[in-house]
Amino acid sequence: MKLKVKNFNWYAGHPVVILTDKTAKEMNVFVDDRIAITASNKKIYAVVDIFSKLVKNKEIGISHELNRVLKVKTGDKVEVTVSETSDASFLIKKKIKGESLSQKELEIIISEIVHNNLTNSEIAFFTAAEKLNGMNFEEIISLTKAMVKTGARLKFKGKYTANKHCIGGVAGNRTTPITVAICASVGLTLPKTSSRAITSASGTADVIETISNVELPLKKIIKIVNNKKACLAWGGSLGLAPSDDKIIQVERLLNLDIESQLLASVMSKKIATGAKHILIDIPYGHGSKIEDLKNAKSLGRKFYKIAKRFNLKMKVVYTDGTQPIGDGFGPVLEMIDIIKVFKSEGPEDLKEKSIYLAAELIKLCRIKNAKTKARDALESGKAYEKFKEIVNAQNGKNNFDKKIKELKLAKFKKIIPAKKSGRITKISNKGANSLCRILGTPETISAGVYLHKHLEKIKKGEPLLTLYTESKVKMKDALKFLEEFKPIKIR
Amino acid sequence: MKLKVKNFNWYAGHPVVILTDKTAKEMNVFVDDRIAITASNKKIYAVVDIFSKLVKNKEIGISHELNRVLKVKTGDKVEVTVSETSDASFLIKKKIKGESLSQKELEIIISEIVHNNLTNSEIAFFTAAEKLNGMNFEEIISLTKAMVKTGARLKFKGKYTANKHCIGGVAGNRTTPITVAICASVGLTLPKTSSRAITSASGTADVIETISNVELPLKKIIKIVNNKKACLAWGGSLGLAPSDDKIIQVERLLNLDIESQLLASVMSKKIATGAKHILIDIPYGHGSKIEDLKNAKSLGRKFYKIAKRFNLKMKVVYTDGTQPIGDGFGPVLEMIDIIKVFKSEGPEDLKEKSIYLAAELIKLCRIKNAKTKARDALESGKAYEKFKEIVNAQNGKNNFDKKIKELKLAKFKKIIPAKKSGRITKISNKGANSLCRILGTPETISAGVYLHKHLEKIKKGEPLLTLYTESKVKMKDALKFLEEFKPIKIR
Repeated sequence: MKLKVKNFNWYAGHPVVILTDKTAKEMNVFVDDRIAITASNKKIYAVVDIFSKLVKNKEIGISHELNRVLKVKTGDKVEVTVSETSDASFLIKKKIKGESLSQKELEIIISEIVHNNLTNSEIAFFTAAEKLNGMNFEEIISLTKAMVKTGARLKFKGKYTANKHCIGGVAGNRTTPITVAICASVGLTLPKTSSRAITSASGTADVIETISNVELPLKKIIKIVNNKKACLAWGGSLGLAPSDDKIIQVERLLNLDIESQLLASVMSKKIATGAKHILIDIPYGHGSKIEDLKNAKSLGRKFYKIAKRFNLKMKVVYTDGTQPIGDGFGPVLEMIDIIKVFKSEGPEDLKEKSIYLAAELIKLCRIKNAKTKARDALESGKAYEKFKEIVNAQNGKNNFDKKIKELKLAKFKKIIPAKKSGRITKISNKGANSLCRILGTPETISAGVYLHKHLEKIKKGEPLLTLYTESKVKMKDALKFLEEFKPIKIR
Repeated sequence: MKLKVKNFNWYAGHPVVILTDKTAKEMNVFVDDRIAITASNKKIYAVVDIFSKLVKNKEIGISHELNRVLKVKTGDKVEVTVSETSDASFLIKKKIKGESLSQKELEIIISEIVHNNLTNSEIAFFTAAEKLNGMNFEEIISLTKAMVKTGARLKFKGKYTANKHCIGGVAGNRTTPITVAICASVGLTLPKTSSRAITSASGTADVIETISNVELPLKKIIKIVNNKKACLAWGGSLGLAPSDDKIIQVERLLNLDIESQLLASVMSKKIATGAKHILIDIPYGHGSKIEDLKNAKSLGRKFYKIAKRFNLKMKVVYTDGTQPIGDGFGPVLEMIDIIKVFKSEGPEDLKEKSIYLAAELIKLCRIKNAKTKARDALESGKAYEKFKEIVNAQNGKNNFDKKIKELKLAKFKKIIPAKKSGRITKISNKGANSLCRILGTPETISAGVYLHKHLEKIKKGEPLLTLYTESKVKMKDALKFLEEFKPIKIR
């Protein structure tokens, strides 16, 4: 069908065309269908969106992504056809049928995802097939390679280019800024990128952002790492393994845990940062993502196996995931914990775990006396200085002290006392996260939960929790949640 | 987050909000994410779309579907939060984990699909789980019930309310208009709804539409069936088992064949039309959807089992699916075949199959001498009169003859002769369909393929095919396709 172009000079984020309801009906296409547009010997695929008020019948609204390629003017006629199933869709179908995919085939799928040529539904089919039919080891390797190949890849000169990753599931547990600062202060190169919260109270990027710019262009990141040995940036805008972000966006609709995708995602991101030494933290135990040590070790072995294939040094540590780590949960509260640890005033559990992880990573780089070096770096204030340096570099000015002073907790505050005396036997990670989300995190950075006691004895009336929020309604909702779900048990 | 409403007084087809890229980033939401909007004690869910030019930062564009519920004015402030996983998503995840779903649970999913509260990705996850984990018999029954319950349901007075369905896969094979006319002319009530083409050269609705209005409101359909005993309408706008259309829209991205979905889809649509006697045609054999009789019968047994549970009389016939049926493929070409059959001038295979199907359905209604009655109805011209009546009723005027005269084939025509003498051993159904699509069907109703010979002897130089198209470029593409894929084999 011939349609008249209407150029929309905006970036829709992916190649999209706008049709009226009537034109779409005539072409027998629906929202999210793929069509092919042909103009001056160029053919390009796009996804259909229907907004009858934006275009006339027989008109096709074209996003900037498309016009960059087609170079057509408003009023030009283009040939539009319903697109046959693409190569990538064919391959996804193959995976659904239970067959395994080759390196080449996975590259096609991942490349089509990166170029926005697959609809979210097709990505959903791909991840569902991964989940239900599984991926063999060679497929995971191929997927990892494809994910690295379709994005930017960093390279640093330092001998000890390292990185760390925690598979998550534990409330608080904000070791990254501390561990990174310790490692950088003893000479490791650590270009750390982190994500924002998906289902938790806050992500590392959300926490760092309370005092620091985290959205930096790739060039700047490279410069900072070359000068300061480390960064603490948000990974989302850097284009490292960019397919991952799109897959996660679809996956998180159902919070699916897909092991092959997790492995390829973690490994591709670390490889893309140029890491040669990688530490993986797998918290396990009742109430965390991995139920027991056996399952944690099974996952760990897979990480080791992949690392071997990519010639990387790896250490997997299995840590206690049964209760939250640190006292504060929520962006500002977690940053306060971190600063306290740097000043040796802080929660002991967060401090000790951060030192432990740093020591393991330093040891992996074959630097001697790793444990002593890690502890000294933190307790001497050397790591804190390094942390300040990184934040100031990311902010482009020396405003660290000012930023710390400006940290502010939410205006509504409520202390929840223990209802009885006894021993705290359970603090649910999921419960703590949900409570924070109800109070407004991660959007409201000043909101969250402060935990006065961990798994220990408590007396009736002693403070158990303090809730922080900017909204009275949210406080009410949070109290209701506490009442209904009892995320903390005292016996 | 509080956002300022901007009312878009259009129906987007589903509850959608428009945000700027910046606002979306601040909220940490992406295209297709679900959010919750709260205003004056009402909470409603919507899906995010990002168009930075349509709204300002901190503004939320609201489709008419949402405003009907929220009743807010442009400029009002609403509270917008990222939506937690809905009940339906939780249930989809349950199915992905391999658990089976109850009647109640499937009703929740199907109802959410009908109300547009699930994203296409979530529907993709649901169908992938159906495909990969399978559905047990009770789940298929529940799914069928849920699909009927969430749509309109017809009821007719006649004793012999019947319907037919062919699972497809054979090129041409346009028996429906003939079979329906025969059955209605001997007293059956047959409110037939059909689909448009999905992957074939044309659907029954496309063929009927060459001479008749097929998009009719439900009330009119009921009136026509009450007066004329039958209709030949497009099912898409009637709201019978409406979840099906949405599921098909997602499924067809990969052309997945999902047996449980096929069974529930066919049965729910037939039940919704009020049918008590149902004929299912399963073509089988190399080159059709079902490879052999064993698999055809296995599917047939499932249809019988479901029919029994719903207290319906059913007959499943297993027919030859190894080659196309009829001579013309493409909307106009198929209508010409149909008219020829009614006038006893037509392709014998199409005529005999139509009589056979009609006789089986008449027999199922326990009317005596079904075979003779069916043949007589067709050969006496009684069925043709009935067909004219139905078309005139659907058009709202007696213009049948005029419409038939106006049928016109495409302006470019090319006869393809046999390259050698011998026996035609294969005519690929898929090949015939692809060839038609390349020539422009179903959009170009005058395009298509005329088959001069079926599986029989042919001499070198005798006409094998005639191609019809409105575009020289398409003719070239079609010739290239013929050369490359050789859909017809002579030995």
